[in-house]
Order: sequence, then C-alpha cells, then structure tokens
Amino acid sequence: VTGFGDTVDPAPYDLNHLPYGSLIEASGRRFAAVRIGEHALDLAAFLADHPYAELFAAGDLDRLLAAGAGTWTEVRRLLIDRLTHSVAAGELRPALLPLADLTPSLPFSVADYVDFYSSEQHARNVGRILRPQGEPLTPNWKHLPIGYHGRAGTVVVSGTPVARPSGQARDPSGRIRVGPSQRLDVEVEVGFVLGGRSRPGEPVAIDAAAEHLFGVCLLNDWSARDIQAWESAPLGPFLGKSFATTISAWITPMAALDAAWIPVPEHSPQPSSYLVSPADRGGLDLSLRLEINGTVVSSPPFATMYWTPAQMLAHLTVNGASVRPGDLFGSGTVSGPRRDQFGSLLELTANGSQPLTLPDGRRLGFLDNGDEVVIRGTAPGPAGTRLELGECRGRIIDT
Amino acid sequence: VTGFGDTVDPAPYDLNHLPYGSLIEASGRRFAAVRIGEHALDLAAFLADHPYAELFAAGDLDRLLAAGAGTWTEVRRLLIDRLTHSVAAGELRPALLPLADLTPSLPFSVADYVDFYSSEQHARNVGRILRPQGEPLTPNWKHLPIGYHGRAGTVVVSGTPVARPSGQARDPSGRIRVGPSQRLDVEVEVGFVLGGRSRPGEPVAIDAAAEHLFGVCLLNDWSARDIQAWESAPLGPFLGKSFATTISAWITPMAALDAAWIPVPEHSPQPSSYLVSPADRGGLDLSLRLEINGTVVSSPPFATMYWTPAQMLAHLTVNGASVRPGDLFGSGTVSGPRRDQFGSLLELTANGSQPLTLPDGRRLGFLDNGDEVVIRGTAPGPAGTRLELGECRGRIIDT
Repeated sequence: VTGFGDTVDPAPYDLNHLPYGSLIEASGRRFAAVRIGEHALDLAAFLADHPYAELFAAGDLDRLLAAGAGTWTEVRRLLIDRLTHSVAAGELRPALLPLADLTPSLPFSVADYVDFYSSEQHARNVGRILRPQGEPLTPNWKHLPIGYHGRAGTVVVSGTPVARPSGQARDPSGRIRVGPSQRLDVEVEVGFVLGGRSRPGEPVAIDAAAEHLFGVCLLNDWSARDIQAWESAPLGPFLGKSFATTISAWITPMAALDAAWIPVPEHSPQPSSYLVSPADRGGLDLSLRLEINGTVVSSPPFATMYWTPAQMLAHLTVNGASVRPGDLFGSGTVSGPRRDQFGSLLELTANGSQPLTLPDGRRLGFLDNGDEVVIRGTAPGPAGTRLELGECRGRIIDT
Repeated sequence: VTGFGDTVDPAPYDLNHLPYGSLIEASGRRFAAVRIGEHALDLAAFLADHPYAELFAAGDLDRLLAAGAGTWTEVRRLLIDRLTHSVAAGELRPALLPLADLTPSLPFSVADYVDFYSSEQHARNVGRILRPQGEPLTPNWKHLPIGYHGRAGTVVVSGTPVARPSGQARDPSGRIRVGPSQRLDVEVEVGFVLGGRSRPGEPVAIDAAAEHLFGVCLLNDWSARDIQAWESAPLGPFLGKSFATTISAWITPMAALDAAWIPVPEHSPQPSSYLVSPADRGGLDLSLRLEINGTVVSSPPFATMYWTPAQMLAHLTVNGASVRPGDLFGSGTVSGPRRDQFGSLLELTANGSQPLTLPDGRRLGFLDNGDEVVIRGTAPGPAGTRLELGECRGRIIDT
C-alpha cells in the first residue's frame, strides 16, 4: 500500500484518524475497535473502567451509532485523551491486537441502504452510453440528488468473496437469456454511515446534517450491467445491484475529516432552498483509486462530486422519511473528467467496446471469475498529512 | 365491518385463521399474539410451560420468523391443539386480552422491503396514463416480475397517521415547486412476510418458496405522484414512496390459506425456467376492498395477478441475493379489469382528471389531509367460509 492522490504518503493510522470497525478473533469472539497502525484497539476492553465501554459491548458499532452525535464527540475525545496522555504502554497492550490475527466483520447492522447518483461526469458518461440519442442528463439531474433504495441485507464487509450473479438479460439479438452475468462491473463510491434517529414526518434540515453523519467508508456498488439493462424499465435497478455491495471494514469518523472539506460546488441552476445553506460544509477532497488484480485502472477524485453529503441527506429526508442508526447511503459512482478518473468499467471500457489492457496482456472489458477489485482512498489530514481510508476489497467467485 | 368479495360473511377469527401480531397494553408492555375473535392471545403467557414461549418473549414475531418453516408448522399445530382440546376456559382467560384495550405495533422488524409490479392491469393502466404515446407494458414486463427496493425503516403498522410528504415536483408549466405533495395516492397491495435465511449466492428455487413464505398482510404503498413523476428518471421511485408504507397489524400465516390457492395464471410468452414449476402453488384468491372515509371506492381481485408469490420470491433471489427473517415484499398495486377494481386513485381518477364523487358530494382526485384510507381483504377459508385479513388503515395528517 503506497500513497496516492498527491505526493504525500498516507499516515500510518495514528491518533488523527482512529477509524472504527468490528473484528473477529480466531476464537470467534467479535469486538468493536479503532485501528491504530497495524493493530485493532479493543474498545470494550480499553474502556472497561468507563461507562462508554457499554457502547461497544455487543462487538459492533450499533450502540455507538444509536447514541448520537454528542456521544460520538465525547467518545473520540476520550479515546484521544487516553491514548495521548493517560495510558502507559503496559495498559494499552492487552487491548491491542495485531490485525494479522483478525478477520473483519460488518462494522454495523445496515438499516436502510440508499444509493445516490451525484457525480455529474458519471451521469453524463452513462447517459451517453445508454441513451446515445438523448440528452446525457435527465431534466431533474441538476435539481435534486437522484437516488434509489438498494438491498441492505446484502451489504458485506471488505474481503467477502462475491458470487457472480445470475439472472435474465436480453441479447443484442433480442433473445432472453438466463445465466451468469456476462457484464459484471464495479462502481467506485464513498459510503456515508448515519447515526441518531429522526422523527417520521420531520425532514433533517441541511443545517442538521452533522447530527446524523457519523462517518465515511469506501463502497463498491457491484453492478451486473446486462441484468440491470433489461430489468430497469420502468422502476429502476433491482437484481443488477442487489446481489452484493461491499463496504470497507473501517469507518472513518467525520471528526477525522476536518481538513478534507472543500467548498460547496457551484450549482447552476440554483437548487431548491432545502438544498442550500451557508452551513453546508461542502464536499470532501478524497482521492480514490480502483485496482483490479493489483493494477491501478482509475483514480477518481471525490472532490468533483456535484452534490454534497449534507445535500444528499437533506434530500433523502425532505419527504419526511426518518433516518435510523445504521442507515447507509452511497454517493454514486465517482468519476472525474479524465478517462483515467472514471469509476466503473462501463465508463472505462465504453461498455466493454474498448477493453483495458492489463500488465499480463489480458484485455479486460468486464470482470472475470477470480478477478480481485480493491478500492482505496486517502483524505487530507492535519498539517499536510493524508489519512488512508480503509480499503474495500472483493474477489469474484463462480457460483 | 361486513363481508365482501362474495356473499359469505367472514368468519370471526376462529381457529382456522390465527393471524399473528404484536400488541401494546396500556401499561406499555408489548406482547406477541394471535387474534381470536375480538381478543389477542398473549403467546408467551399461553405457552409459558412450553419451550416455544421463548419464540415470543421479545414481544414481536422476529424469533418466530427466524426459526423457519418447520417451527411455524409446529407452533401452529401446538396452538390449534391446545386451543381445541386441552385448554379449559379458565386456563385460557388470563392470556386473552380484549383488542379494545390494546394498541397494535409493527409485528416484526422489517429487514428489506421490496415492491413488485405484478398486476398486468395496473401496469397497463399506469403505462397508458404516464406514457400515452408508447406501449403500455415495457418489453420486459411478461418476462420477469418487475420490482425495486423500498424503505424498510418507514414501514408502519395499521393505524399510524401518515404525514403528507413534501418534496420537489415539476408543474405542467415546467416550474420546479417544493412543498406538500398535491397528488397523494394509495396503492392497494398484498404484502408477503418472509422468514428463514438463505445463503448468499444461492437462489431460493421456486420449489422452495414455502420454506420462506411465512404469511400475508395487507399493504398500502402510499405514493406521492407529483414527487414520483419528477424524480423517477432514470433510477426509479424514491421519495415519492419512501415516506411511509402501511401494513396490517395481523399477519395471516400461509398455513391458514390452504383453500385460497388458485392455479398459476396462463403466461404468454413462457417465462424462464426458474420462474416455472409444477410445484408452484399458484396465486391467491383474495378479495380486496379500498375504502376512503368509509366509502368503498374499489374492490380489487388479487386472483387477477400475473405473477405468483413463489415467482416473485424466485426472481428476487435468482441473482444470489439472500433473504433474511423479516424481509417483506409487496405484490404491487392490485387492479382488476373493471374500473371499480382499480387499486390506486391514479387509475380510479385517470390521474386526477376524473375525480370520484363521495357520498357527501365531495369530488376526490387525490387525498386531502384528514382523509382516512382502509384496505380490507378476505380469503377463502375451510368449507366455504371466508377469513377476514387484518385491516390496513391510515389517516393523512398535515405536517
């Protein structure tokens, strides 16, 4: 793992970061942790003398997410304080376990999963490929962050193998075919993990986004393009997406991303008032990278997204839909303006018509069985450092 | 409440039915129950001397759903046996609470919620209204049960008030408007509650549907047509649906519906093999009724659905998506061929252009604040009787 997105190597998971996760020991015991270097700090053990230990007693982040933003701030302050000042090496060591001995598990119970479509470049690329005769952007695109619900029950943690999905598709000849997807794709996304609970019928105002935005993860919205193309009219994607969505094992808290905010993008036309606020902290300057079988095939810049996380959350709830701890939304595929910044094979290969060439000479249109996909990301940290986000990894297996 | 759908009055929730629910006492205590007449039988209390009491100890149906089909059969057999033979009136009475003293709560934790689109008449009606120039049915419609994911976190139990959603819409003039929906609609549906757990990557074969189909409820897929129309291209419905979905407080187990099955509808063209099996038990002859402010405005026949519950489940998982206890899918709006059998106001009023006239002279296009919607249903029971399904009720309130 090396640095990217700039010339600075990422910092080694120090006190400025402290991403949260859930790990499983060889014994089968599961525990909630923050990552420190190449170790996981067992939070229930580390905080055993503190009431906050209870937040982590179930081995995942569910209680922390439910506790709300005030508690998130206090827990982080407590951890940094103890790790900085109060802990002699001997006190820390029993709670510090080498990652090499651990298996990641899904850090939290995913409540509802929504996928947005907030990269203008991606939407234009897809529009040009799928609707070559029409306008690339639908008329609503610049008025609201388009989104749809996905399947929460098939969100899996980084490292989980992904079985190639089967399903119906229509060949170019018009024949209906059933079988393994022949156009299996990735989508490089950033996921936002929500906590706290809003009341039904009461939108989360854009100014209140910080009360619910707990943290970010990297997310691969695996997509079977042939299944998706055939099924999607008129109600949108379903089985082309629902077989699996991978998230990173580590959730970077928003509190670690203070240096990553960038101004709200220019919006033209001006969006509706519920999507606009001087309190919107803006976008995030995350540098992403897509690797297939160890080769970097793309470097999507998250800073190019049209809609901000706060806008997506405000939109998600403007109709009065409530949010729950464990809700997750994806940004939509991140694609920058250059071809080597596109976040899906659909775009990188022009729908398979212009395959990539891998170092071993293989021509790659879509994914084969055995292919391993890794999404990496870094974020600006304090004083010119970079934080490395948890990787999002998955290998395609036969069914 | 009177009988309908035929000339037989529904039976008074006798031992042939025993729908499951979750109730709250005035004290705040929540308990799982079956309905017997106008009473709820507290299952944890009634089965206190039996290991199965543990299934109901949490006050909802979650553990029962997780226990799987074998346990569902045994629990039902146990209940019928005890209620028929072994219980003296004095033993039963402490566990029997009058419904008048109880408040319904959501019977189970909704895991993933999927909404199908399985009524051909409904799809044709909607296609004609929304795409008057094109073919009413999209090319995929007769090849697969179209569906999409909805918001599980906003599924509410019958009786919960529904706050009118706000959101963006585009006026006929092209102006973007933000505010309360002006075209708030209902969709009469049947919901299917799933239990057991399938393995990721392994489809639930159509022959195995009974291992996961626990029971049916009535379902109102509230829809804000103005929000939905503007947002839906290209990824489908989102905020037009996600503000609320109401289900009945009582889940009728599939085991009570033996007399309700009807043959698999004629399918032309022949669907893919994963959607066809001699073991498919077929459709269900449920008679539904839509009431607005006490007036019956429609009587949709569920027997007219094109796709069967087993076909919907087989399709939902053909890509390897796993199912979990608490998964819920809706059939899609149920519309019969006659106008007085349409299951939405969109269809009943030709998108508001031909309002209904209520007995008080009011012209109703879409729902006003204060309007109360009730969906009722009956099913064939043993020996010519009818079972009455739990009602699905909701009143629109201002926000």
